[in-house]
Amino acid sequence: MKKGKIWIVGAGPGAADLLTIKALRSIQSANVILYDALITTEVRSLFPKKAILIDVGKRSGDGKNPISRQEYIHDQMLMYSLLGNQVVRLKSGDPMVYGRGVEEIRYLLKTNLEFELIPGISAAMAASNEFLIPLTERGKSSGIHFHSAIKMGGEKNNLNQIIKEIENDDTVVIYMGFEQLNEMASELNRRLSKETNINVVSKASYITSQVVSGNTRFFSTIDINELPESPAVIILGNHTQIPDSEKNHANKSYSISKRIRNLIKQPFLNLF
Amino acid sequence: MKKGKIWIVGAGPGAADLLTIKALRSIQSANVILYDALITTEVRSLFPKKAILIDVGKRSGDGKNPISRQEYIHDQMLMYSLLGNQVVRLKSGDPMVYGRGVEEIRYLLKTNLEFELIPGISAAMAASNEFLIPLTERGKSSGIHFHSAIKMGGEKNNLNQIIKEIENDDTVVIYMGFEQLNEMASELNRRLSKETNINVVSKASYITSQVVSGNTRFFSTIDINELPESPAVIILGNHTQIPDSEKNHANKSYSISKRIRNLIKQPFLNLF
Repeated sequence: MKKGKIWIVGAGPGAADLLTIKALRSIQSANVILYDALITTEVRSLFPKKAILIDVGKRSGDGKNPISRQEYIHDQMLMYSLLGNQVVRLKSGDPMVYGRGVEEIRYLLKTNLEFELIPGISAAMAASNEFLIPLTERGKSSGIHFHSAIKMGGEKNNLNQIIKEIENDDTVVIYMGFEQLNEMASELNRRLSKETNINVVSKASYITSQVVSGNTRFFSTIDINELPESPAVIILGNHTQIPDSEKNHANKSYSISKRIRNLIKQPFLNLF
Repeated sequence: MKKGKIWIVGAGPGAADLLTIKALRSIQSANVILYDALITTEVRSLFPKKAILIDVGKRSGDGKNPISRQEYIHDQMLMYSLLGNQVVRLKSGDPMVYGRGVEEIRYLLKTNLEFELIPGISAAMAASNEFLIPLTERGKSSGIHFHSAIKMGGEKNNLNQIIKEIENDDTVVIYMGFEQLNEMASELNRRLSKETNINVVSKASYITSQVVSGNTRFFSTIDINELPESPAVIILGNHTQIPDSEKNHANKSYSISKRIRNLIKQPFLNLF
């Protein structure tokens, strides 16, 4: 029997042309694909017609226990690779950035199965490049800090850390922080000695991507239901203004510049 | 005359198959490519035969003033795009992560030329995925902090910040920090209440990639000339051990596991 292999693959932010060549090849040679809820239609359209496709995505309110969901994924990887398949475990973004990649690696190392990881473009980089949001700039900002959600109150509160990072002129990136956006912004508004800039990027790299930028006061009062949909990544800090819009920053808030929105989004051409 | 356009493109860590599909297409349709010193032979082999290739890389000791080098790049982008060319400005890693992308954007926004950015896989993600170095893990580590080099002493010293991040069980990633590795490790060894783990990843994704891992004491005394060559990225923190090697951690240092080194590195197939 042919030897199976498992590929833990980062699909990137959503646009099919932001897959790496290596990721695309792993998908195209897969017999079995286990994919997450955030894998876009655009990426799914590249799945081979004959592959077994298994949606292992978490959906809020599906009532499933996260541990048994993870065990189910492990079981599927094990079974299909023992049967000699090329198994792709496809995750949005990068497998090692809030992607539970490590849990799957720990499992696979115990099994002695052959596996390999393929990195993916993470949402922070996708959002920054698409909307020209600085992450670092010589002489201005040299640190980038990734946080998952915001822990408010309690011992594990990471807001103190975020405040220091902003005061240090660093860039702060928050994954999965949309729900706590109001609360975070109002705390920052209260505790920072000066206003800082917040960019909320929704669906980076999708055809429907959007950014809303403004200061802490703006985001402390906004109704988050009026903001573009998740998945969203939040990029904040004193040097994270879109350069084109710096002169508008005093207006407290501005939406995405027309120049960027009018960039022609090239449809994905299926050359492969 | 055909309208020119400038693409500021992340080439990723070095392996050609870690280019995104979009980056590969921009390279293959370029008339002019301005590329950095760290762009690998593997990626350069994809440059179109007829394109004008301009090496704008910084090399230490070349005596060039960084400002005039940057102005030269701006001039070339302007001139070739006004002449109607598809100009690719190719940077290693991601354009917005220590890549001077923002300086080039500020310049281009003044000119009214058409341009677009394409993100790339940054070294942290490439190294983490290749060598199974955890960046985040549920219940263990949820913050990732990118620093450029280490500023020792003086007001802009960022070692205090790094110490707090390690004590918080977060992951610290240092770009361009190879030269200060000894000094950093010995300061950490002196000031941290317990040992932490340091991984030095050289040439992530290259055929010759290597990782050396150990504790702060090990790296405070090692002769850095005996370590694998730069470019290197340093990943450190209490939860950054390669899972396979955790039981060896008490040995103070370990080199890369044979299992990983023996993964067959697939040569880049020129399918495009």
